[in-house]
Amino acid sequence: MDYEAYFKGELDTVRDEGRYRIFTEIERRCGKFPNATRYVEDRTEQVTVWCSNDYLGMGQHPEVLQAMHEVLDDCGAGAGGTRNISGTNHHHVVLERELADLHGKEAALLFTSGYVSNWAALGTLAAKMPGCVVFSDALNHASMIEGIRHSRATCRVWRHNDPAHLDELLAEYGPDVPKLVAFESVYSMDGDIAPIAEILDVCEKHGAMSYIDEVHAVGLYGPRGGGVAEREGLMDRITVIEGTLGKAIGVMGGYIAASAALCDFIRTFSSGFIFTTALPPAIAAGATASIRHLKASELERARQRERVATVRRRLDAMGIPHLPNPSHIIPVMVGDAKKAKRISDWLLDNHGIYVQPINYPTVPRGTERLRITPSPVHTDGDVDRLIEALSDIWSQCELARRSAAA
Amino acid sequence: MDYEAYFKGELDTVRDEGRYRIFTEIERRCGKFPNATRYVEDRTEQVTVWCSNDYLGMGQHPEVLQAMHEVLDDCGAGAGGTRNISGTNHHHVVLERELADLHGKEAALLFTSGYVSNWAALGTLAAKMPGCVVFSDALNHASMIEGIRHSRATCRVWRHNDPAHLDELLAEYGPDVPKLVAFESVYSMDGDIAPIAEILDVCEKHGAMSYIDEVHAVGLYGPRGGGVAEREGLMDRITVIEGTLGKAIGVMGGYIAASAALCDFIRTFSSGFIFTTALPPAIAAGATASIRHLKASELERARQRERVATVRRRLDAMGIPHLPNPSHIIPVMVGDAKKAKRISDWLLDNHGIYVQPINYPTVPRGTERLRITPSPVHTDGDVDRLIEALSDIWSQCELARRSAAA
Repeated sequence: MDYEAYFKGELDTVRDEGRYRIFTEIERRCGKFPNATRYVEDRTEQVTVWCSNDYLGMGQHPEVLQAMHEVLDDCGAGAGGTRNISGTNHHHVVLERELADLHGKEAALLFTSGYVSNWAALGTLAAKMPGCVVFSDALNHASMIEGIRHSRATCRVWRHNDPAHLDELLAEYGPDVPKLVAFESVYSMDGDIAPIAEILDVCEKHGAMSYIDEVHAVGLYGPRGGGVAEREGLMDRITVIEGTLGKAIGVMGGYIAASAALCDFIRTFSSGFIFTTALPPAIAAGATASIRHLKASELERARQRERVATVRRRLDAMGIPHLPNPSHIIPVMVGDAKKAKRISDWLLDNHGIYVQPINYPTVPRGTERLRITPSPVHTDGDVDRLIEALSDIWSQCELARRSAAA
Repeated sequence: MDYEAYFKGELDTVRDEGRYRIFTEIERRCGKFPNATRYVEDRTEQVTVWCSNDYLGMGQHPEVLQAMHEVLDDCGAGAGGTRNISGTNHHHVVLERELADLHGKEAALLFTSGYVSNWAALGTLAAKMPGCVVFSDALNHASMIEGIRHSRATCRVWRHNDPAHLDELLAEYGPDVPKLVAFESVYSMDGDIAPIAEILDVCEKHGAMSYIDEVHAVGLYGPRGGGVAEREGLMDRITVIEGTLGKAIGVMGGYIAASAALCDFIRTFSSGFIFTTALPPAIAAGATASIRHLKASELERARQRERVATVRRRLDAMGIPHLPNPSHIIPVMVGDAKKAKRISDWLLDNHGIYVQPINYPTVPRGTERLRITPSPVHTDGDVDRLIEALSDIWSQCELARRSAAA
């Protein structure tokens, strides 16, 4: 078999569908977010980033950077081992305590990423509990789907955000069957929010464990940034809260917060936790500083909400269609992979505005979009330039205005 | 079902087997490796780490730290997104070029860890190529096994380091069947090294792709630290070279180096690459600085070889059994989980010597061991103290001397 020809052929198919991804190479300019330097061939340009998941700009917060500089000098670059073999640094332990406190749980467990935390925690729970059945929201993130798939447990998919359907599926199984209900709070691409209380009612009725992914909510919602479940006073009813340190926290890593026994169980049996080098101590210290700041400060969250509302209002005024939702994510719908890419390229090349087009497999085909994430660091001038440029390209491409989005 | 009781019961079983893991909480002291501060209850102690995978002490190298400090100030804490959505930083691109050059390949692709690089690359190759059969060395790392398992491709396990057996298994499949042969260069727990040339002969004979994990070799072997395959002049015959930035490189992250088409294929189709936040730019910059240093400097490698030889000679002189192998890893065999833990605890509590006991599932039951990794930062005094303490406990526990190891 000609492997090279096979790889090239598969890539050609992706190109023909207009969804071949060319990564935009940038350097975010610390202290001047959302500004970044773009590298393009043999030159650089200044751009404004409108699609970062560093939702609050914490990646440039002085307290975060100071903590990282200090621990880099104190402990060095890497952890030097897995958590079990010389890689457990004091700063990991401090961070795990901070995360347990954030979510009101007995314990927390760190992973190298949010992806790995979902994959490893769901994969281990579903695989190890004999006869476990997983109930997965239809729009769950790839990392959750892969973790469940990896476990080889029976998986029942319930209609997105539909507790009544979940109730029906759960009712098919007796009380002795271990049940694990997995869902997210804020869904990243549509920005909609799960009816958490209703889902928990159904879980409790059937004696199911509940597992919530709050990666797009931690830091952003709730009086201490504990997520949507904190805002709604529901954290104590949830079995496992999963989050990330790479989005609103501004650094890197993932975690679960749960009972001491559950965290210890995952710690003891999860391949994806055991057999991997621990996060660098400086990364852990930066995340701790960020979480501590966001526990005490409402400033960033309030400013972000105002920025999101402003961008929405301005889009509405220009008739540019965006998906309505109760979160901080603004999906501007295009509905075609090639067109979404063309608009994005035009914004970048002509206006220095960077909004990545989102296409399959991240979103279903036909729902391609620009996903805009306003943050506290975007100025009024940034918003003006974004709206004017979008309005301009909307006219040029003769795109529909004021229509209901897909 | 009572989930908490289930978790606790499973943990009790592990405790009864003497393999419940208590993480040793330390802070490595940058600039003073292998010294670390140990946190134990309400006090701290000074210890010497003898089990780190920061094999060359690069985690405290001034060039590495300087690069990280600079990029932390330039670009901030985190990448702010996935590689596709605003997370591709210039420093990732530079590092990927550096890695491609290190291994003499057209391209390289970064992952968040070595675990993820194996899991994602093997999982994607084996799942996407129709009818692919994977041929996996019997002692491959958990991350490779999980990746292959995840792909659901047929997997044939060949006897450890046995090219003749691999040949037999490959011969069962016709020329049109895609074949992927996965193995390691240095096996982490026994420290033995694969007969790479013979394995490649067999791969080429049957038209199979070859995939080598060099995580315990990159930085350590070869004139530029390209690994065992570089030392033996074999890199150009290998389809995929996988490595880590978290061991001898001293930082964090994983990668593959291969043809441009293969890397682009994984980049385009691998869930574990696509749907995860990119490494922090400062991490990438630190890894680049480390690799560049180790490409040019033989000092660290020479000093490590000398230290390894010295510890082996001193162990031999005292009759303390260790597994003979041609690598830098010294497994001191104990053969019992509880005894290995007791020795390790005694060394730590009485001598401030930290060597983690290695037990199941990392090694087979009955082959429990202390895994010692001498590095350029261990002084003669450190070696003296290690040997004296080991000799002391060997007498106290009436352990066999000069016997052949398990």
